[in-house]
Amino acid sequence: MKIVIDMMGADLGVLPVIEGVSKALSSTAFEAVLVGDKSKAKAFISKDLASKVELIHCPDYIRMEEHATDALKRKESSIFVAMDILKNGADALVSAGHSGATMGLATLKIGRIRGVSRPALCTLMPSIKERASLCLDVGANTDCKAEYLLDFAIMGYQYAKSVLGYENPTVGLLSNGEEDSKGNLITKEAFKLISEYPLFSHHPENAPIFKGNIEGSDIFDNIVDVIVCDGFVGNVVLKTTEGTASAIGSVFKSEIKHSLGAKVGAMLLKGAFCTLRQKTDYAEYGGAPLLGVNKVVIISHGKSNARAMECAIYQAIRAKESGVCETMALAFEHKQAPKEVPS
Amino acid sequence: MKIVIDMMGADLGVLPVIEGVSKALSSTAFEAVLVGDKSKAKAFISKDLASKVELIHCPDYIRMEEHATDALKRKESSIFVAMDILKNGADALVSAGHSGATMGLATLKIGRIRGVSRPALCTLMPSIKERASLCLDVGANTDCKAEYLLDFAIMGYQYAKSVLGYENPTVGLLSNGEEDSKGNLITKEAFKLISEYPLFSHHPENAPIFKGNIEGSDIFDNIVDVIVCDGFVGNVVLKTTEGTASAIGSVFKSEIKHSLGAKVGAMLLKGAFCTLRQKTDYAEYGGAPLLGVNKVVIISHGKSNARAMECAIYQAIRAKESGVCETMALAFEHKQAPKEVPS
Repeated sequence: MKIVIDMMGADLGVLPVIEGVSKALSSTAFEAVLVGDKSKAKAFISKDLASKVELIHCPDYIRMEEHATDALKRKESSIFVAMDILKNGADALVSAGHSGATMGLATLKIGRIRGVSRPALCTLMPSIKERASLCLDVGANTDCKAEYLLDFAIMGYQYAKSVLGYENPTVGLLSNGEEDSKGNLITKEAFKLISEYPLFSHHPENAPIFKGNIEGSDIFDNIVDVIVCDGFVGNVVLKTTEGTASAIGSVFKSEIKHSLGAKVGAMLLKGAFCTLRQKTDYAEYGGAPLLGVNKVVIISHGKSNARAMECAIYQAIRAKESGVCETMALAFEHKQAPKEVPS
Repeated sequence: MKIVIDMMGADLGVLPVIEGVSKALSSTAFEAVLVGDKSKAKAFISKDLASKVELIHCPDYIRMEEHATDALKRKESSIFVAMDILKNGADALVSAGHSGATMGLATLKIGRIRGVSRPALCTLMPSIKERASLCLDVGANTDCKAEYLLDFAIMGYQYAKSVLGYENPTVGLLSNGEEDSKGNLITKEAFKLISEYPLFSHHPENAPIFKGNIEGSDIFDNIVDVIVCDGFVGNVVLKTTEGTASAIGSVFKSEIKHSLGAKVGAMLLKGAFCTLRQKTDYAEYGGAPLLGVNKVVIISHGKSNARAMECAIYQAIRAKESGVCETMALAFEHKQAPKEVPS
């Protein structure tokens, strides 16, 4: 298993990336190729680690403020070089750099799975239930057609089944009300497409996979395993949950700062705070897979710490081992079939 | 001040509505007209209250599962009758019934302010800062054009200034990133329209009112006073914040249930929990005004308790007293002006 890791462009620099790789290497076997600025990295790479990884020197990278389209031609950038390594034989790529650049280059160089209209960025939402829900798209496509949402539903379902190992995963469409009649023009059309699609309308145990519309308040209850939405809405929702949780955290912090009693109270409630931290810690969830391209690409949060990078690598390994790209290719081969029948 | 209150169609029945009216009447003077099923209401209306309110018998109402369009012709429904009373001389209307029916009838009977493309539903978001942010549209328009978003910006600004009394309110556009280049097709176009609109591009103290794009994570920080988005996104975001807060609450509740220490801890942290409850209690925020129609219409949460109904009445009184509808009419008169110049 050969995993190429882009060391550049993350908000916290190369250190958390290198530490994450080092930790992952100490608990599981894989071939690591690190792409980035050697002069920045060497201070953090021990002799032992240096003997275990391949280091490709590449000091240029796409800054967060640059346009993703610029990345498509910048051959000397770390993500361009890393994507070439993925294309030429590596099994997976992990990057915490410019996400637009990674998505653009993945689509260009690795290519979409045949039949997929648009690749989608997919993330696990924090959940208070045992299973967390997968949400896609959370940022790859700001303007979507209804067919894209159908493809997101298929991809999310396959990922939940193959990589997360969910039994009988269910799918829902994020809308402004749970009634079938709710939605904007695109989700209403997508509702029809998804509910009529054979995979979702038939089910061996007679329980439909597609559960219809779900609301924003249902996200944390794991009412469905796969939440489908366009990338604009998904991105806003994802950041809203982060904002809500952090606002609630601030209220507690300020109270604890000003009262000894509250400080003791917080200690006694440590269990609840730990559970919350675990359930809302993006680090434990790894990164966001870009679904719909021919190889495993994991896009990590720009602010990823070492643990998040380590988890993203495990996620990449699981995705590759599960053969999710092949499963998806098969799922979309079937999707195309009706269109190919000569009329 | 004559306020007409629809007693019907709320999730918790007529009781909280009547209690809310009664409480409001005991602390401020206004003329209350209650429209609804007398036989359901009379058990809850004391002799004293009966002497203070006008009761219009109207047992029919629009059920939550009915289509809003059905309401437009159901002359015998409580909201139809209440809206007629508003049209014929009352100053404001409050309803916790079918919101689509209320919006549809308000637009049809009371009419849009000249120049307003679409009325919008507007709500205060919980905030950890002193000022809470206003968000619109949160459900009146699931499919928007860029011009609608410009109108929402103007209406939100006027409401924040006139009714909430915010000094120099600021406006932001909800998007998938804070950079100017972020957004979907509609928000990108709206960004241009809003930033070029005279009210927002000029400012006496040289600080622009329009702060550009904001993200979901900024909602609780009062980064701007008025958050503009389409009604689909606004509705999903609103319910997502409710869901996040309630999920966090569940984690605490389950911890407290299982441990005496945690119970004590929660007591010691009572202050923080109270602050949170206050800041996130929709009841204190009253209802959601429908902006852009010629009279004051407040749409309350279907699950409103007595306090929420009481606050909605205060909100209606404040809105009427502030002359917000007239201010808005003036603001949109100016908006129309350039179009009326013969070319």
